[in-house]
Amino acid sequence: MAHIKLNNELPGIRGLMAYRPETEVPLNALVELLLRDDNNTLTRGERELIGTYVSYLNDCFFCQNVHGALAGHYLNCNIEQIDSIKHNFQSTDLSPKMKALLSIAASVQKGGKNVTEEQIEAARTEGATDVEIHDTVLIAASFCMFNRYVDGLGTWAPQDRQFYVDRAPRRAEEGYQSSVYN
Amino acid sequence: MAHIKLNNELPGIRGLMAYRPETEVPLNALVELLLRDDNNTLTRGERELIGTYVSYLNDCFFCQNVHGALAGHYLNCNIEQIDSIKHNFQSTDLSPKMKALLSIAASVQKGGKNVTEEQIEAARTEGATDVEIHDTVLIAASFCMFNRYVDGLGTWAPQDRQFYVDRAPRRAEEGYQSSVYN
Repeated sequence: MAHIKLNNELPGIRGLMAYRPETEVPLNALVELLLRDDNNTLTRGERELIGTYVSYLNDCFFCQNVHGALAGHYLNCNIEQIDSIKHNFQSTDLSPKMKALLSIAASVQKGGKNVTEEQIEAARTEGATDVEIHDTVLIAASFCMFNRYVDGLGTWAPQDRQFYVDRAPRRAEEGYQSSVYN
Repeated sequence: MAHIKLNNELPGIRGLMAYRPETEVPLNALVELLLRDDNNTLTRGERELIGTYVSYLNDCFFCQNVHGALAGHYLNCNIEQIDSIKHNFQSTDLSPKMKALLSIAASVQKGGKNVTEEQIEAARTEGATDVEIHDTVLIAASFCMFNRYVDGLGTWAPQDRQFYVDRAPRRAEEGYQSSVYN
């Protein structure tokens, strides 16, 4: 049960957004832009993967399953493949560029000052642009907010991971702007 | 020097926002709503103080000085008084309610799961409403994003702390929507 009285039965961030619709608007605008905007050279799957990985590092069950299912949907991976990436992305067949960006995201999760010039250079060497590095840092940082919001208020989350997989196609179609309502 | 080529000389988050104005829009909308909206029973000074304290815990020089100067402006405190709150808020003459909310914010900074039912009950006992607890958690979480964004991309910050104090009245007047432009 959530720490505060939400007056709804919605799980995770959806319960919080229904409780406080004023703050829902800029939060959903941010995530819609960061994860779904078409004017981005990182694919939706790659961006969802960054959010999934940071949510895993922050041990946020709801976020890592919502976004892990979406990453799997876009990247055509199953739960086990997404789990392999979360547990040890270096040993997977992700592109060297994605590995370099996930390494930066992991440093952001620890704290901004953990990002090193060497990590930035490694990402550039693998073909990452400055905008891609910028967006990786901001996506990782934003999930450090979303994860803390969801867990800091003690929201509940469905424990059956298939629930998230089943919902991913609809969320992929409808986007985040309508996430309170379905 | 920032990790990426910003093509501007603006400090901290302002340089990032000028570099990527698309993401600036929802970020400023969020901070404007959380820290300045008049429809809130926490004062602007109290909300700025929560952001300042989390920025201090995250060791983000730019954010703790921008928002510390704003908190000082609203609460009629000088830098030394704001520093005392950052270093040991329990020993200051802040209200018991603000101390309870800052304690929650400190737990959010460590990670959402660190917030305990006892902290929530303590805040309620001191008169905090559920919306105030919600906003405290979200403000603290959002600064975990802003701090990581600012430091994760290695932005520069003016080292003279008086710079931030001098700018605070203008920022207080103009708000965050226009922060890129001045």
